[in-house]
Amino acid sequence: MKEKGAVIKENASIIALYHHGVLQDELRAKTYAQNTNTFDFSTRLNPKGNVFQHHEDILDLHDLMHVARDHIGQYPDNRYLDFRHAAADFLGKGLTYSNIIPGSGICEIIRLVLGCTLEKGDIILIPFPSPPEYTRYSVLFGARVIPLPFHELLLAEDDVLSCASVVLLSNPGNPGGRLISRKELRLFAERCAGHRTLLIVDESCIELSDPSQTLAGHVFDNDFIVVVRSISHAFAIPGLKAAYGIASEKLVHLLDNARLPWSIGAHSDVLCTAVLNMEGGINSGYLEDSREIIRSQRNYLINRIGRIYGFSPQPSDANYLLVDVKDLFMDSRTLTENLASKGYLIRDCSSFFQAEKQFVRIGLRLQEDSDSLLKAIGEVLTETSKEDARERLEVTIESAVAGAASASRGTCQYYPCHFDGQDCTFCFCPFYACEDEHTGGKWIVASSGNKVWSCENCTYIHQPRLARQILDILMEDGDTEDNIKKAWNLIIKPLL
Amino acid sequence: MKEKGAVIKENASIIALYHHGVLQDELRAKTYAQNTNTFDFSTRLNPKGNVFQHHEDILDLHDLMHVARDHIGQYPDNRYLDFRHAAADFLGKGLTYSNIIPGSGICEIIRLVLGCTLEKGDIILIPFPSPPEYTRYSVLFGARVIPLPFHELLLAEDDVLSCASVVLLSNPGNPGGRLISRKELRLFAERCAGHRTLLIVDESCIELSDPSQTLAGHVFDNDFIVVVRSISHAFAIPGLKAAYGIASEKLVHLLDNARLPWSIGAHSDVLCTAVLNMEGGINSGYLEDSREIIRSQRNYLINRIGRIYGFSPQPSDANYLLVDVKDLFMDSRTLTENLASKGYLIRDCSSFFQAEKQFVRIGLRLQEDSDSLLKAIGEVLTETSKEDARERLEVTIESAVAGAASASRGTCQYYPCHFDGQDCTFCFCPFYACEDEHTGGKWIVASSGNKVWSCENCTYIHQPRLARQILDILMEDGDTEDNIKKAWNLIIKPLL
Repeated sequence: MKEKGAVIKENASIIALYHHGVLQDELRAKTYAQNTNTFDFSTRLNPKGNVFQHHEDILDLHDLMHVARDHIGQYPDNRYLDFRHAAADFLGKGLTYSNIIPGSGICEIIRLVLGCTLEKGDIILIPFPSPPEYTRYSVLFGARVIPLPFHELLLAEDDVLSCASVVLLSNPGNPGGRLISRKELRLFAERCAGHRTLLIVDESCIELSDPSQTLAGHVFDNDFIVVVRSISHAFAIPGLKAAYGIASEKLVHLLDNARLPWSIGAHSDVLCTAVLNMEGGINSGYLEDSREIIRSQRNYLINRIGRIYGFSPQPSDANYLLVDVKDLFMDSRTLTENLASKGYLIRDCSSFFQAEKQFVRIGLRLQEDSDSLLKAIGEVLTETSKEDARERLEVTIESAVAGAASASRGTCQYYPCHFDGQDCTFCFCPFYACEDEHTGGKWIVASSGNKVWSCENCTYIHQPRLARQILDILMEDGDTEDNIKKAWNLIIKPLL
Repeated sequence: MKEKGAVIKENASIIALYHHGVLQDELRAKTYAQNTNTFDFSTRLNPKGNVFQHHEDILDLHDLMHVARDHIGQYPDNRYLDFRHAAADFLGKGLTYSNIIPGSGICEIIRLVLGCTLEKGDIILIPFPSPPEYTRYSVLFGARVIPLPFHELLLAEDDVLSCASVVLLSNPGNPGGRLISRKELRLFAERCAGHRTLLIVDESCIELSDPSQTLAGHVFDNDFIVVVRSISHAFAIPGLKAAYGIASEKLVHLLDNARLPWSIGAHSDVLCTAVLNMEGGINSGYLEDSREIIRSQRNYLINRIGRIYGFSPQPSDANYLLVDVKDLFMDSRTLTENLASKGYLIRDCSSFFQAEKQFVRIGLRLQEDSDSLLKAIGEVLTETSKEDARERLEVTIESAVAGAASASRGTCQYYPCHFDGQDCTFCFCPFYACEDEHTGGKWIVASSGNKVWSCENCTYIHQPRLARQILDILMEDGDTEDNIKKAWNLIIKPLL
């Protein structure tokens, strides 16, 4: 029994530490309110968009809404037979409704399973990084979370697996985006079952990756697997609340008994059932097209964003990219906020990384939107560089007046990044990426495998006289973009 | 840590014992499928019906559905500010959105609060009878449930309150229907707070009883109260999924952090917010009318149903009646099934009473429907009596042929209920309630305070010769109703 005094048990209080969703909601609301045109790259929704808008021919939303409207006044049948039949048919593989646990969302189902399995002191293995909810719910139920690097999880020793009550992972990984093959995961699932350790696989975006890698077909003879599937992500309908778990009949029976009753409302029930029943199922034209768009946009964006200095997109098999921005001159949170101010929402991943502000997640969208985002990133970097430069200029001038050395030299841990005695007024070049090899800059292959414009052999911006002249021009009245062009034409171009 | 072997922890498995909702769902589905006209008295919904059908002038469902439709493709703002503002305004009493926890239903909110407060071995006090979910969730989280008779709860000794982490009750009581006054409950809440014991009050039908008795206005300076409110019940819209908890800002902040994200879908969010914002709030014409209908129908049904032998409606302040049927010749489950076969759904309460089949709950509806139900009950009783009589007749004849004594005499625990040597062919009189005082029958006042037709002084049906004559007529070809009339006219009437 907990010590009387705290109305909320300790574990429920400390999970606040892992919760950053509110910040993301605030940022999203503010961005939508301030920008007539908002581009949301922060979610993991199908870039093809809301299935009802694309398939008016197949899914008659008007008719479905009418049916749902008639159900507002009635309790749903808590067995959700139609929905469960539709989910089983959508999956195929011989699954039936008795392999399906209905729920209102991924989080509800994961929380249900954890609540039914974890007791105080139990051990749960969660790969790192993973969605913060995994840790939050585990801690709420009193479990001890052991984070393992994602690539080490499948190699966990027998004694580690044996100690754990539960292993919980997302496939494809979130935020990482890597897909573990069915073959590998099946072997791991068999090892888990051998140790009587429950394996929960959150497959919330697998329809948009490679659905043939699902573990859903392997639940029949293994009572230690729960696969969790979303409908929101694959069909871009997060305003509807329905999801499902897949498990052996025996396990479904146990979980079904403990789940929240009537958790799917009339509209979500009717509309999501229709979506799951759409002709072609997992191989419908809508989903095939979506996967094609995702493949092509993933290559496109990895290639383009990888060229920006400080952006290292990680390899991905999913409809989103994890981008390492540790080499960028601003942290993930600042980048996210700066882009949001321009109407571009991306996902700051600090909540996935124990508050470390080094990664952002970018959901894939259509190419037109990707191009806009790339432009917006360029603007943010340039503006921030300029602001930086201006601030530094003031410091430089003040320091010069006071007869002190340049402030930046003394305080910068990277000094001298180019040559001893360099001028640091422009820590970041206002002309980046000029793409002019006459400067000494060149395209190189970054660690991510992508081409990046490197300024390693260009020192113009750090020559005190040139830096001063460029600054003078940038400080003139008028549009900054125009001033940058002017400075380039007047100062740099003649030197090339 | 639980013993490895069971994938589901013991507490999650044993809660199956308290779960009977599936049976009710099966029965409902079967009843609706088999009866073109189904009357549902099994829920606790507002008898006035779906608010959208009644208030097309105020609530433009078409417009609202259109708004919701536009939100299908977007994530809800998980802060649910509009909904929470609407709930606070609906309640008044100086409450603000920061006193409101949003959720998809009563069960989700109660489960959230229990999950955040209960640890293994904690004690929770729950009045008996209560909804089985209370016990289910408490056991799931490892708590020890101490059931107290409803009327004893508020009188619990200090040492009992002090031991408990949580007290969970519904007001008005479910299935009992009695409303505890705000004054009484407030004093109890202060005692709970004094012992640092959390008091959860499920007020899911209080809008349909006396909403001025809510504890919602007393959360400001008491961190040990959570009031839970439904929208489905008061507005008869169970196909929409939204509910809310009310607590101090501090407590809301803690619970809000642990709740399921995005649990209210677009339609429920938009439509329920509009309902809560309806002019007049808790005192809208819709709710005032509803309460008036409920008051009048409650009196009507208690009075009428109380006249049926074996039906003892309990006093109620709510929109439903608990009816004790222990004196009936069939148990609550059989009664429920028999009525369902005729299209009348009532709630078998065995799941509220640890499987004891002694009570049913009847939700109030409009008078026309109540009259239909009363007629259906009459039919069920008569038919069952007849079936009983026929079965007994066969046994009697067989026994007579074999030279044995009447089977019913030897096995009936009530024999002789009227006189030694009585004939038991008709355990229940096919003429009940004849309402003819010449038989010796008369109206008496039952324990419920209602008039009941008593057959105490009528012995005709148990006289061997008469019983045989009546049976012969009832066994003739033709409509049984006609045969009963014929038997009355030919056999009984001449004797009066």
